[in-house]
Amino acid sequence: MSRIANDKARAKVMSAQDAAKQIKDGDRVGFSGFTGAGYPKAVPEALAEQIQAAHDKGEAFKIASYTGASTAPEHDGALAAVDGISTRMPYQSDPVMRGKINAGVSEYSDVHLSHSGPQVRYGFWGNLDAAVIEVTKINEDGTAVPSSSIGNNNVYLEKADKIILEVNAWQSEDLEGMHDVYSMKMPGHNVPLPITAPGDRIGSKFFDIDWDRVVAVVETDSPDRNTPFKPLDQESKTIAEHLLDFLGNEVTQGRLPKDLLPMQSGVGNIANAVLVGLNEGPFERLTSYTEVIQDGMVDMIDSGKLLVASATAFSLSPDAAKLMNDKAAHYRNHIVLRPQEISNNPEAIRRMGVISCNGMIEADIYGNVNSTHIMGSKMQNGIGGSGDFTRNAYISVFVSPSLAKGGDISAIVPMVSHHDHTEHDVQVIITEQGVADLRGLSPKQRAKVIIQNCAHPDYREMLKEYIEHAAAVSNAEHTPHDLGRAHAWHRRFLDTGSMKQA
Amino acid sequence: MSRIANDKARAKVMSAQDAAKQIKDGDRVGFSGFTGAGYPKAVPEALAEQIQAAHDKGEAFKIASYTGASTAPEHDGALAAVDGISTRMPYQSDPVMRGKINAGVSEYSDVHLSHSGPQVRYGFWGNLDAAVIEVTKINEDGTAVPSSSIGNNNVYLEKADKIILEVNAWQSEDLEGMHDVYSMKMPGHNVPLPITAPGDRIGSKFFDIDWDRVVAVVETDSPDRNTPFKPLDQESKTIAEHLLDFLGNEVTQGRLPKDLLPMQSGVGNIANAVLVGLNEGPFERLTSYTEVIQDGMVDMIDSGKLLVASATAFSLSPDAAKLMNDKAAHYRNHIVLRPQEISNNPEAIRRMGVISCNGMIEADIYGNVNSTHIMGSKMQNGIGGSGDFTRNAYISVFVSPSLAKGGDISAIVPMVSHHDHTEHDVQVIITEQGVADLRGLSPKQRAKVIIQNCAHPDYREMLKEYIEHAAAVSNAEHTPHDLGRAHAWHRRFLDTGSMKQA
Repeated sequence: MSRIANDKARAKVMSAQDAAKQIKDGDRVGFSGFTGAGYPKAVPEALAEQIQAAHDKGEAFKIASYTGASTAPEHDGALAAVDGISTRMPYQSDPVMRGKINAGVSEYSDVHLSHSGPQVRYGFWGNLDAAVIEVTKINEDGTAVPSSSIGNNNVYLEKADKIILEVNAWQSEDLEGMHDVYSMKMPGHNVPLPITAPGDRIGSKFFDIDWDRVVAVVETDSPDRNTPFKPLDQESKTIAEHLLDFLGNEVTQGRLPKDLLPMQSGVGNIANAVLVGLNEGPFERLTSYTEVIQDGMVDMIDSGKLLVASATAFSLSPDAAKLMNDKAAHYRNHIVLRPQEISNNPEAIRRMGVISCNGMIEADIYGNVNSTHIMGSKMQNGIGGSGDFTRNAYISVFVSPSLAKGGDISAIVPMVSHHDHTEHDVQVIITEQGVADLRGLSPKQRAKVIIQNCAHPDYREMLKEYIEHAAAVSNAEHTPHDLGRAHAWHRRFLDTGSMKQA
Repeated sequence: MSRIANDKARAKVMSAQDAAKQIKDGDRVGFSGFTGAGYPKAVPEALAEQIQAAHDKGEAFKIASYTGASTAPEHDGALAAVDGISTRMPYQSDPVMRGKINAGVSEYSDVHLSHSGPQVRYGFWGNLDAAVIEVTKINEDGTAVPSSSIGNNNVYLEKADKIILEVNAWQSEDLEGMHDVYSMKMPGHNVPLPITAPGDRIGSKFFDIDWDRVVAVVETDSPDRNTPFKPLDQESKTIAEHLLDFLGNEVTQGRLPKDLLPMQSGVGNIANAVLVGLNEGPFERLTSYTEVIQDGMVDMIDSGKLLVASATAFSLSPDAAKLMNDKAAHYRNHIVLRPQEISNNPEAIRRMGVISCNGMIEADIYGNVNSTHIMGSKMQNGIGGSGDFTRNAYISVFVSPSLAKGGDISAIVPMVSHHDHTEHDVQVIITEQGVADLRGLSPKQRAKVIIQNCAHPDYREMLKEYIEHAAAVSNAEHTPHDLGRAHAWHRRFLDTGSMKQA
């Protein structure tokens, strides 16, 4: 019981099953959890059992599920599997959850991560009936040490009618001091965010807990979902090299200082390859203002290349998670975990001049980017924080291999099948083929450099043929398009299994 | 000579023709000018004559033209008419300029207004060879009183190798004190922007001028381009009423305070109708954090409804401009003109919780908005500041009549032909038909409310038929689309002159 040092908290300890009974059909519930870190480990599965039992009796039981970002099979997966989620927001990546969204069982609203918490605070998402939040420890004074993500927990704790806390003994007690809990206020009550460098600490190490609203405390001892990274492939390494070359040239041109500017990198294998590249590269005294702490950043802290990283969550492999748990007392000197309304805050991002680097599904010849939809209709994971960073970055970069599905899909297309980042926001596109620097270019100029530098040779001639054709038939030369053929590649893939012409 | 009180400045007075000779083929030039206010009145036409003379001799002569936003026939129009502009950024609205962009004579890069100045500061637009800036007066100490817009002038004055000042005696000397000149710095050197309310003054009344770089001072006495507003039509009044009803309901629901939050409104007749509606409506003690001061705001200041407005420029009718010139000493107590990197700053907009309201060309059933392109290819004016405000607003609203071209165009379409604001950023759509509140809705839910509340009855059944068809053929139910038919309406208009089925 050492993780619960407060009497009121001890009095509310119960089983996950009993705690889950507090949640009813139609409730809106704010859960902890961000990229598989810090989500509740027991209550969602207990709730899923109760939902299934209700459904077995022919009773309706669905909840609206709001989180920080993606969670895990025993959370999103369990609730989705029993058709228990009516509305989900924001980012998700569980295959069962995704399936229910694309089958029309669950409605999904794909909100920018930095907006999701504030919009709940504003009341745009209705009354919040319950919050289910994992913490590391409950202090004697009733405050709580956050766990491996903060996400929107500060907002959900502030707004929920009922609070259920999960105290997870798996999380290292040495996480204490890594967090910086600071909440935005309602408009008219905000002051300038006092962050001018990624390591600035402006808030509290703990969550304040209103114990009058706490209805249950559940004890767990379960690891986060920690997905191993794939071994680095040559393609990812090449993309990372192109990015490093681009950054090096910006330094040479005087557009970046020698120690760069705070880096943001999206989640995934290419992002990790970029971090590995940075760790082996020439830049020193780096900082990061980003969403998640990935393996590559831990290595960069170890090597001394990365002085400090700001994020809202971990997204670590099992090995790196073990290392973090063992040495949190060391890493907390170099890592600040914040609420996602702060980690992804446009004010801080614009002020510090963050260099953003995010993956994508596809880009088009004019520089629009699709981050979310497969072939225009099927939701993959969601926009996440890519818009928060891209829209306010000093330089915004998108990266992807130029081909997918063994070459049957080109990541460079005439017109993206869904628009998440517009031509106005996308400055640099990098594939293993090369770098397209779009700054200062008109749409037609962008098309040339994207096709030449980023498209795979297998698709370059097809793309050139498209713009020549479009220029001949379109109603203006500013952004030549033939709206009848702009998505022909996607339709061909849906019909034949390949974007290539027969 | 009373407008030029400084000796160094007096020594550099010359004709516009002599001043224009300082600008050469290939130069990048930063001009003052924002929505037809405060653009240079003499040098652009003199430069156009020299460009034409060079072309007559078979010599190349084109410049890159950077401004604040749109200018006027004697600026953009004159330079475009002689094919004198190689690259233009950001917003423009001159018909000759637009024609050259769509004919492929001039390259146009459609940058968000709040990014345009900072990107010049960063060096993303190359070396700035010259700045041509209109001011109201040159003080004895060599500082200058800005004129009827500030735009990117602070950046252009900071970065240009050569500075040409136009001193326009038409501008009221009583503008002195209305301006608040504050410049962002390079990343790593910025502090929190100390603005927490629209009326906060944080900078200087004057531009600092580096007289070593000033190569010419030109005296003018010419009015701004002031376009009369059209008389309010019933459609605009109805749209304004819908917006007021929506805002009233937000107050009732407790999501807005009684005196609302700072309002932003785009340029044009519907925006002005909204202001007229606000002036006749129930809300008191309003403030505005916006881009331009329009006629309706002047009326609201007069009536006492509007306490203070922050902007970067005027956009007034001839009558209102005369009133402003006569009574600037009064209005400067209620108006703050700032650089556009501050008037449109995401930090200030997000912090204060601005309510944004912008016009659009079209929206689609899933809530994406096209602000810039006619039928996907032809540039209209540009994105302007709509993204700066929309992306960071407390509530983002887009307004448009549901029909155009006598009913042959529907403003609500299956898929917009160009994406400027994505589904992630668009919260409310209003036409004369009604209000679609998209907050918290999934794409399919949005489609229902947009079709029912905003589409014109002539197109509702066609839209319903599209989503039913799309749901049947698409690869997922999250965002149903038939990519083969998504732009069929636009193609039909291009082929037959109407989006309606024959």
